[in-house]
Formats: sequence, C-alpha cells, structure tokens
Amino acid sequence: MADTPDALARFYSVIPAGGIGSRLWPLSRADAPKFLHDLTGSGSTLLRSTWDRLAPLSGDQRIMVVTGRAHRAAVEEQLPELADANVVLESEPKDSSAAVGLAAAILVRREPDVIVGSFAADHVIRDVRSFRRAIEQAVVVADAGYIATIGITPTEPAIGFGYIHCGESLDIPGAPKALRVESFVEKPDLATAEQYVEGGEHLWNGGMFVARADVLLDQMRETQPELVSGLEELAAVWDDPARRGPAVDRIWPGLTKIAIDYSVAEPAARAGRLAVVPGTFDWDDVGDFASIAKLHSGGRKNDLAILGENARVLADASSGIVVSQTDRIISLIGVRDIIVVDTPDALLVTTSANAQRVKSVVDALKLSGRSEVL
Amino acid sequence: MADTPDALARFYSVIPAGGIGSRLWPLSRADAPKFLHDLTGSGSTLLRSTWDRLAPLSGDQRIMVVTGRAHRAAVEEQLPELADANVVLESEPKDSSAAVGLAAAILVRREPDVIVGSFAADHVIRDVRSFRRAIEQAVVVADAGYIATIGITPTEPAIGFGYIHCGESLDIPGAPKALRVESFVEKPDLATAEQYVEGGEHLWNGGMFVARADVLLDQMRETQPELVSGLEELAAVWDDPARRGPAVDRIWPGLTKIAIDYSVAEPAARAGRLAVVPGTFDWDDVGDFASIAKLHSGGRKNDLAILGENARVLADASSGIVVSQTDRIISLIGVRDIIVVDTPDALLVTTSANAQRVKSVVDALKLSGRSEVL
Repeated sequence: MADTPDALARFYSVIPAGGIGSRLWPLSRADAPKFLHDLTGSGSTLLRSTWDRLAPLSGDQRIMVVTGRAHRAAVEEQLPELADANVVLESEPKDSSAAVGLAAAILVRREPDVIVGSFAADHVIRDVRSFRRAIEQAVVVADAGYIATIGITPTEPAIGFGYIHCGESLDIPGAPKALRVESFVEKPDLATAEQYVEGGEHLWNGGMFVARADVLLDQMRETQPELVSGLEELAAVWDDPARRGPAVDRIWPGLTKIAIDYSVAEPAARAGRLAVVPGTFDWDDVGDFASIAKLHSGGRKNDLAILGENARVLADASSGIVVSQTDRIISLIGVRDIIVVDTPDALLVTTSANAQRVKSVVDALKLSGRSEVL
Repeated sequence: MADTPDALARFYSVIPAGGIGSRLWPLSRADAPKFLHDLTGSGSTLLRSTWDRLAPLSGDQRIMVVTGRAHRAAVEEQLPELADANVVLESEPKDSSAAVGLAAAILVRREPDVIVGSFAADHVIRDVRSFRRAIEQAVVVADAGYIATIGITPTEPAIGFGYIHCGESLDIPGAPKALRVESFVEKPDLATAEQYVEGGEHLWNGGMFVARADVLLDQMRETQPELVSGLEELAAVWDDPARRGPAVDRIWPGLTKIAIDYSVAEPAARAGRLAVVPGTFDWDDVGDFASIAKLHSGGRKNDLAILGENARVLADASSGIVVSQTDRIISLIGVRDIIVVDTPDALLVTTSANAQRVKSVVDALKLSGRSEVL
C-alpha cells in the first residue's frame, strides 16, 4: 500500500463544469451557468474558487476541466493556468458519468496508475485546509482500491441534499477517518433528515469522488458497459488531433446520460467498494437562492444579502436576498425572506420557501417558447 | 332658489391636476404623475376619465384644468377639447386651496354667478350615472348658498380615507338627499372606522366640492385672507396676456400652501355652511398599489392584477399586483399580496400591507440625492 505523498503525487483533479443551475434562473442561464458566477461575494467565480482549492493538492498542471464547447472561452478566461491538454469539451451535455468517465479514460491512458478526483465546479467550501485534509485521506483510500467519497457532517436536517449512511471503519493506514459506505440515500423528507442528523450515522453527499481511474471505469463498466466502451474508444484517439473530432461526432451523441451517483457510487456501495471520508469543513451546493441567502447571512434571519457589483438597493424591514445585474434602484419594503433577482431581461420575485420551485418556471418558459431568456 | 337646469347651466368643472402620487412610485413620478396613468386598465388615463365624467355635466367648454407648467403638453394631449382659456398653469405646486381658489377667482370674474365644482384628476369612479345624479343635487345645494361636498357610502372600514359626519337633512328642493355636515374626520384607526361604517352616519370624504365661486372665496377668505387676496390679484389680470406672467412671477411663489379641506371645508362645517350629498357610486382615490390591486381583483384575494401594455408575467401561486413598464419577463413564485412595480430605472417590491409606506422610500431617495428616479 502506498503512503500518502506517493499516492498524492499520482492525484489528478477533474472538474466537470456543466450544469446551468436552473434553480438559480434568471441569474444562471445557458450562456452564464452557475459556475461562472461569484455567488459568495468572494470576488471569485465558483469555478475559480474550485480551482484554487484543488491546485495546492494536485498542482495546477494536473487539473482537467470538462465543459461545454460554448463555455470554453469563459472557462479559459477564468483559469489562465489551465493546460490545453486538460480541457475536455463536450459537444452536448451527457451528465456526470460521461464527463468524469471520459476524463478518467483519457488520464488512465496517459498515466496508468493515476488517481482521479471529481469535484463539482459550482460548490462552495471555505475551509480549504480541512477540505485538503479530507482529500488527502480520500486519495489514500483510493490508492487502496476503494472508490472514495467525501461526506459532510450535517449542520441541519437539510432536505435538499442526498445523504451517505456510514458503516464501520475501514482501518486504512494513512486514512484513519475512512468508513465503509452502507448506502446512498436520496433527498429525504424532513422527519427522516432529522433522524439522520440525530443518529449521527449519516453525512451529506458532497458529490465528490476519488478513485484510481481504472477502478472507477471498472465499476462503471459493471452497470454501463456500452457507455464505458464508448468513452474508452474516445480516449484512445483523444490525444490525436486529427482523429478526436470525428470520434466525438460519431460517439458522443449516442452516450447514455446518467449521473455518476447511479453508474458508480450506488453500485459500489452495494458491492462494499465505496468508502467515505467524513469532512468537517463547510460545504454547500448553493442549489438555490435560499442557499445563497443563507451563505451570506450566516443564518441570521433578518439579514438582507445583496449580490451584484453595482447593486443599488434601498430596503426597509426586509430580509432575504437581492441579486442585481442592472443599475436600477431596487426598493424593498416589508418583505421577509424575499428573493429578488433583477437582470436586464428577466425579473424573479419569490421567497426562500419557494426557492426550489424556480426550476419549474424555467420549464414553463421552455414550454412557452421563451427560451431567449434561459 | 334656482331649479336644477338653471343652476346646472351655470356649473363649471375645475380639475386640479397636480399631485404626483408618491405612494405610487416608481410608476408615478414628477414627469409622469398619477393622473397621466391608466390605473384601471380602462384604456384611459385617470385625467381623461375624469374629463369624460364631467363633460356631460358642464359641457366640454366649461372644464378648467389647473396643472403644473411641466405637464401642459401631456394634459393637452390627453384633452384635445380643452380650451386655451381653461388651462391654468402653476409655476410651482401650491396645494389645493391655491389651485381651486385661483380657478374660482378667474371664473367669478368671467361669470359672477358661476357655480364651480372641484374634482381630483386622479380618482376612479365607474358608475358615471350615479355620480352625475349626485353632482346635480350638489349644484342645487351650491346654488342655495352652501358649500356642497360629496360623501361616499363606505363599503368597508377603510383607514386610508377621511370621513364626513352627517347631520340632519337640509330639505333643499331639488336636492332631497342633501344633509348638513357635522364635521370632517381625519383618517381614523380601524376600530373607529368600523364604528363609522356600523353607525351609518359617516361617509367617505371624496374630496369633491361644489359651491358658488363667490361663496367659496368668501369662505376661504375667513381663514386665509392673504391667500385669497393674492388669488384675486392674479385673477384680475389673468385674461390679459401681457400682465399675467409678471403677476404670476410676483404673487404665486408667496402663496400659502394649504389643502382646501383646511381652508374651506372644515371652517364651513363648523359654521354650518357645509352640506353633503351622499353618493352611492363606487369611488376610490387609488392612493396606493393596494387600492389598484383591489380595483382590479374586485376584492378576490387570490387574483394577480397585471398592469402594463407589454407585460410579460409568469406567475405561480401568487397574488397581488404587477405593474410592468418594461418588456422583461417577470416571474413570481409563491408570493401572496405582493406588489411588484417594474420600470426601466427603478423596481419596487412590497406587499399590500406595506403599500402606504411607499412614500417613505420616496422620501429616503430624496434625502440620499437620488432624485433622478423620482
């Protein structure tokens, strides 16, 4: 078994930067997806912050970004250090199994014993040191042949996240915190979530996976043999500029769209091959505006969070969040837990309690043919 | 005592078109005051609807409009029938006593026995026939030497209106409904308003006054002798184009700003010279966005009223009012009794319960020097 430094030297970060973030419409859209926004007020986009978290772990020449062709320029502007060989462009979105699987298939051909870690481009983690410690253990766990995930200690009975049911310690040297995963649990109802938090055996599923690339692909092959075979066919010609394009055109459109949770994590958990390293860092997938409001207010009920460089907000007895992408005066009077998102061509007004329903508006706009604002 | 037709032949309508309507910001503003908006969805501005209500009573050559210089073009565009001699322009706002008093002073010089009626440019009355019947009686009451007002039978214990406490019948032939006014009551609290509605002796003060011009001026002179003397000085040269301008420049700036309720109606009530004709028509001063919402929904709690020719609203489980002056998509999710006013340079989000507080935002904007959006 490898010791930590050696395994970490073989570590490669993969950032799938794909999702639009429909529940953050009208801020996030096809041409301005969630990962290209600064949702925390840090001055950095979520993508850039993700990069900055990973670069100290894998080195900035060992971070691969998988994104849509349309986002190439924006991604490269955000990440000037990103090497050409580390840009993987999707001709159309094919969900996380294809994105992470292709990265793994490409990297394993370049470095047979590479350990890959997949990290969403649009999550928020502020405690970078604690994050780093968890990933270091996950790399060791991965080197031992497991598929490792990171579980976040819940701070509240959230119903918007999936949970990981933890089992016994795996007793892996160099990864003392690693536990076997009993099962993955979909977003629970509130009562169940409360039991999880109280019971102490459940962690939030942070959507991070660390594994040897060959182990990851073998696991995926068990349930998605055709997908993996397509990905490997692509990987075989990926580093040959003349053959890559035609292969993408031929293979990519037919690939199965499936989340890596279903193609890898759940089957691995059932087979006893999934491990979890509990992380004590803060984490949020900032899935909706209520999450953003909470990030900004630090949980204080009466705060009004204001996002937008040129925001001109006049608020009286109001709380929640205002996102301003215009230079208009925005005046709020007596509105609590409100969400106001003001963009040049679309305005959203809702409340924290309804934040998850924003996606349904996006669906309605699609159906009614008003996709110019999506 | 004159009979109705004779008195009505001497009737002249006066429309003071002055107030901006601060509680309707950012829809109503200095350069787009409330009376220039169509708040009912009728297709007519409030000013035009006021004109159309009065023209059958006084004839369209006997309607005088008192407005600010800045609004002259807009007013004349709305009222192409308005005679030049019937346009009275204020160099700066001086409240209703100066506006109505000047009109009365000008008209009484042209026609000594003229009966003037003053009607706000920005109220909503839909039952024009019932309105007409009330005004006809008020004209008879005015011809008998009283200052007549119109009281509206309350449909609810409104706290946003003033009330009129009615006394005994005046037994005026041709005006069987006319009552003496015991007193004027400022906006009451809810408990008092409920007592008023239950007691049946109180009517809403609709802010309409009908009186012989000389009687009105005599009454105003009792409490505001300097104001009336200034107004009469102005009136003496009004129809002489060469002398009007210098007189306005000299006199107008120094005139006392006072509402006609205080200079005329309350003193007249105390002196037993104020009469009221109860009106059974609908009436609203559409003082805030909650009133507009109510006008549109007809009182149905779950309705969402939408104002704006090009409004593009997508609403789910929402009620209240949206006013759209842009072509943006406005999306509402799960917001009840909401008020959203979307204009090119300012956005307001509040609730019906806070509608009266909009004025405080306008005050705050003034104080902070952002008057470009007022």
